[in-house]
Amino acid sequence: MKFICTQGDLNTHLSLVSRAVPSRPTHPVLGNVLLVADADKGEISLTAFDLSLGIRTRFRAQVTEAGKITLPAKLFTDIVSRLSEGELTLTGEDTEGDDGEETQTRVTLTSASGRFQIRGMSASEFPELPVISGGETVVLPILALTNGLKGALFAASTDETKQVLTGVHLKGSPEYLEFAATDGHRLAVVQTPLEESELSTGFSVTIPARALRELERMMAMRQDNDTVTLQVDEGQVIFELGEQRITSRKLDGAYPAYQQLIPRSFSRSVSLERKRLLSGLELVSVLADQKNHLVKFTFDADEGQLALSVESPDLGNAKEAMPAEISGEGGEIAFNVKYLMDGLKALPSADISLQLNESTQPVIFSPLGGLKMTYLVMPVQIRS
Amino acid sequence: MKFICTQGDLNTHLSLVSRAVPSRPTHPVLGNVLLVADADKGEISLTAFDLSLGIRTRFRAQVTEAGKITLPAKLFTDIVSRLSEGELTLTGEDTEGDDGEETQTRVTLTSASGRFQIRGMSASEFPELPVISGGETVVLPILALTNGLKGALFAASTDETKQVLTGVHLKGSPEYLEFAATDGHRLAVVQTPLEESELSTGFSVTIPARALRELERMMAMRQDNDTVTLQVDEGQVIFELGEQRITSRKLDGAYPAYQQLIPRSFSRSVSLERKRLLSGLELVSVLADQKNHLVKFTFDADEGQLALSVESPDLGNAKEAMPAEISGEGGEIAFNVKYLMDGLKALPSADISLQLNESTQPVIFSPLGGLKMTYLVMPVQIRS
Repeated sequence: MKFICTQGDLNTHLSLVSRAVPSRPTHPVLGNVLLVADADKGEISLTAFDLSLGIRTRFRAQVTEAGKITLPAKLFTDIVSRLSEGELTLTGEDTEGDDGEETQTRVTLTSASGRFQIRGMSASEFPELPVISGGETVVLPILALTNGLKGALFAASTDETKQVLTGVHLKGSPEYLEFAATDGHRLAVVQTPLEESELSTGFSVTIPARALRELERMMAMRQDNDTVTLQVDEGQVIFELGEQRITSRKLDGAYPAYQQLIPRSFSRSVSLERKRLLSGLELVSVLADQKNHLVKFTFDADEGQLALSVESPDLGNAKEAMPAEISGEGGEIAFNVKYLMDGLKALPSADISLQLNESTQPVIFSPLGGLKMTYLVMPVQIRS
Repeated sequence: MKFICTQGDLNTHLSLVSRAVPSRPTHPVLGNVLLVADADKGEISLTAFDLSLGIRTRFRAQVTEAGKITLPAKLFTDIVSRLSEGELTLTGEDTEGDDGEETQTRVTLTSASGRFQIRGMSASEFPELPVISGGETVVLPILALTNGLKGALFAASTDETKQVLTGVHLKGSPEYLEFAATDGHRLAVVQTPLEESELSTGFSVTIPARALRELERMMAMRQDNDTVTLQVDEGQVIFELGEQRITSRKLDGAYPAYQQLIPRSFSRSVSLERKRLLSGLELVSVLADQKNHLVKFTFDADEGQLALSVESPDLGNAKEAMPAEISGEGGEIAFNVKYLMDGLKALPSADISLQLNESTQPVIFSPLGGLKMTYLVMPVQIRS
């Protein structure tokens, strides 16, 4: 194998795929990145795969000798990122191992002023990325995907034992995409509209949050009016964005029937400035009890005011007030402050509304204007 | 106690003193910051003290009732830093403890939109900052101190058992200040010139690096032509910069006679670009052996070239070459790459010189032009 490419290209594409390299590989070759040099196409492809998430990307290079090899991902990335800009030559040659059994491969990377030799492993040991044949294929606009993930991804569970809740449930219809995520304590649902022509059939799939975070990162490097091709079969999903591809296993099992959890009528509603509420919560949370992170909302309809208060038995107490338009009666309700702050950061508008019933029933936060988003939080019961 | 001040003033001065608050206080009150409100002067003073390092600062405020109190430093700083700009009112009132014995103090902090109540401890429990009477007092220019610390502080030992080596040895004479620091493996010595009038007598003192890092930080907030007053007695040093004061214990014991370690004649010298050498070392260090961090320098006098090379039994090897002006013979010498990089980052000039003898004798790195600095590193013997 032998090719010449720029340091910039190799560095950019290495850092893209390196996010699929496991930090503690279950098999040594999974800690490596697969390089394939294609002489006919004049192209290098890089692949990393942790058996669940796989990332592949391609870029142009002067390939004088086709070939395949795998190299230690972290070491290779560390070297390439520190090299100065300019042309790099990479050559790989098989050498007999000391014991005459194993075939090792030595790669030499040459820059204008230096030379690196590192040991690789045979490409034949690297697992194949899953391919999909005969599944569904849909083309989705980047803008709709980006907005949907921004409003939902944060609410997925980070607890690996929660299985289907560690993903985002994505539902497509000809009119819109719907993104839902919940960890059992709170639920975020976002609908982003589609042009009529973009999707002809419906589909639904639950995709691990980790793969979607990589998709988010890749989409951020592209134009809003680009598209992503999504293929789905029994066990896998594949996202394709031009030269890049993400493969991921699907999450099996029925996703909770979340629409049933969302109340449809409310006895009270409150509208107020999102950032004011967020900074108020950040402020009083300093004194929130370390165990339950409880913050109490007190609505004063006559004054048009929301007061946040916390009380820590050890440290003291805090109160912060802000203007709010309140329709319906005043009253009190309490939340876990962490869940509120997560949702407020993700809500996409300057002003938001809270819709609520009794202080033990779910509360809905939604943007005033902009995207259609529903953020449901269960209140915490206050002992009086 | 009652006073009104701005959020900006309180926040700035709290973050200054909070660096002397120990993360694991040996006595609860040391985790607190002492506030003293002086009605006559219209001034608040804040103090933190971990029994070794103390920081005190003062700022203007409308004091309507004089008084003293201590408050939990982290909690108080967290609250004040999150408050929005504007006026704050702080009131402290003594309340009887539940058991009627201990006197607790409750402090109420009021902003335009909120109110915080936190518990303090009596100021009488807070230890007095050391004062110095009858010691030496010298006035030192900030520029000379800043340049000296920049070139020496990094070389002090971070191993608390190394006692006197955890500090910087500061020597004053009418002509210059000399800063020396060593951890036993490398030595940095900097001389910064003084105007004739600035110092009439000589002095020498070893000061903990931790206190000097705080001094560096405080000096960075001032003009280069300001001065610092240094007082020294048997056990303590005090730095005064306007409204701020740092007190620190001195490090006892004789400082090593470092001038004797510096060779005076050399058989070879090399000059080259500092940043080129630094980035070359950063690059090849990726492949350096994880145990000894060894990098080999090969000087080629005919080619006018320095080649850096490393070899890792597990990973591979690297070589990087750069132009260098070499006088004397070529040859090889090896170093611990970490020590080299530290020193190269601190050297204050674009070009530097290496002066050396045999490959087992100390090597001197110094700036070409600019400050007078000597960085001595012991080479590592190469097994051939």
